[in-house]
Amino acid sequence: MARYKLAVAYDGTAYLGFQIQNQGPSIQGELEKAASYLACEQVRVNGSGRTDAGVHARAQIVHFDCPKPIPPASMVRAMNTRLPEDIRVTSAAIVAPDFDARRSAKGKEYRYFLYNAPILPPVMRPFWAWDHKPLDADAMQDAASRFCGNHDFAPFSANPHRELFTTVRYISSFSVKRSGPRISFAVRGDGFLYKQVRSMVGYLLRVGRGSEKPESVSELLDEAAPRTARVPTAPACGLFLWKVFY
Amino acid sequence: MARYKLAVAYDGTAYLGFQIQNQGPSIQGELEKAASYLACEQVRVNGSGRTDAGVHARAQIVHFDCPKPIPPASMVRAMNTRLPEDIRVTSAAIVAPDFDARRSAKGKEYRYFLYNAPILPPVMRPFWAWDHKPLDADAMQDAASRFCGNHDFAPFSANPHRELFTTVRYISSFSVKRSGPRISFAVRGDGFLYKQVRSMVGYLLRVGRGSEKPESVSELLDEAAPRTARVPTAPACGLFLWKVFY
Repeated sequence: MARYKLAVAYDGTAYLGFQIQNQGPSIQGELEKAASYLACEQVRVNGSGRTDAGVHARAQIVHFDCPKPIPPASMVRAMNTRLPEDIRVTSAAIVAPDFDARRSAKGKEYRYFLYNAPILPPVMRPFWAWDHKPLDADAMQDAASRFCGNHDFAPFSANPHRELFTTVRYISSFSVKRSGPRISFAVRGDGFLYKQVRSMVGYLLRVGRGSEKPESVSELLDEAAPRTARVPTAPACGLFLWKVFY
Repeated sequence: MARYKLAVAYDGTAYLGFQIQNQGPSIQGELEKAASYLACEQVRVNGSGRTDAGVHARAQIVHFDCPKPIPPASMVRAMNTRLPEDIRVTSAAIVAPDFDARRSAKGKEYRYFLYNAPILPPVMRPFWAWDHKPLDADAMQDAASRFCGNHDFAPFSANPHRELFTTVRYISSFSVKRSGPRISFAVRGDGFLYKQVRSMVGYLLRVGRGSEKPESVSELLDEAAPRTARVPTAPACGLFLWKVFY
């Protein structure tokens, strides 16, 4: 028996999300089909966390146990032979039996890509969100910086009651960079609530349009603020799980 | 009555090609639907040339006549409101009534994008062809340069008998550039035969793999060469109609 740690890149467009669903295709479901074929038995594939329907990954991390030890390079090739083309294993390693893709993770980086111009070129469409109104990237960076630190992010969770223990999370960095019409958001933290990244980006877009002031982020995160704020969620297609830190 | 010249970008993945087809969706068909709605009558949209099923365009040029004069900026917005998201009008101009997208064209540039690495990242998949075996870009550039000039390209046409007048074409430049795993081909000429660009790229890939020598291009283009050479066609997904010259 060997425990494998895999890095997996995927185009989430055609999937209901990472987690196995009865209603349709999922990343986890496709990974388990491929891994079970190689293991010659039903295998459970565990991810570092879920990604929502339509969300992509540059490097999701998963682990699973395989009774047949296979060299890691062969594992990469064998998995990719079985997987659909929009899911690719990019690396594999044999790890200690107590490695756990979710519990061992120390933090995560998400990136969000937005095209800010009157027309969205068709080649950008699969992986870029789009806003045709001019956005103020400086104001968005000001607001993004205010997310950094230890805060109760309940106002930026789609469903705070779903969280088992606490809605407090730590964000170590949040950058907003513009290059011509391309705006990219990069946020790192110890973990994120359900839809937290898309809610934060959605709020930053309101700041970028001038509908909210950067300072309002601090007010929403203030402990005295009501926990009922309705924050718009940015579309899934621009979001990538970029890196998991161990 | 005003004649409009439009630049159109499209993701050809979901279409049977530029030309109207009975069997399914086409770029021309979608453009005619949108233009006819705006013109309040059936409008014929004429392109600079056809692109095959699955081939994309950065700037296909089309013309059509509209009985209602609409300011060009409004034409761009109105067309994009009616068109599917994978087809975008990027600019519009009112031109002389004798402008013809195909007949007025002096030349065209096509580009082909190929990812040369063991694994194709899912984000590249929609618009990049893929070859996992290492390719020699220098040998491909050597071979590509040999296409330049005036030649009978019959060996690089899918169906030379389909061409009405001649299979002689002029290529002014053909570059092959590598940047890490990304290889891009750019070819300019006065016009191209049916599937000529994909046949030339397909042949260059054989040169890149070492299956053919760069000099063999000159031999195939030599007038004494038999006109029966079977040249492999590179996949459609990597090909873009890049620019039309007038």
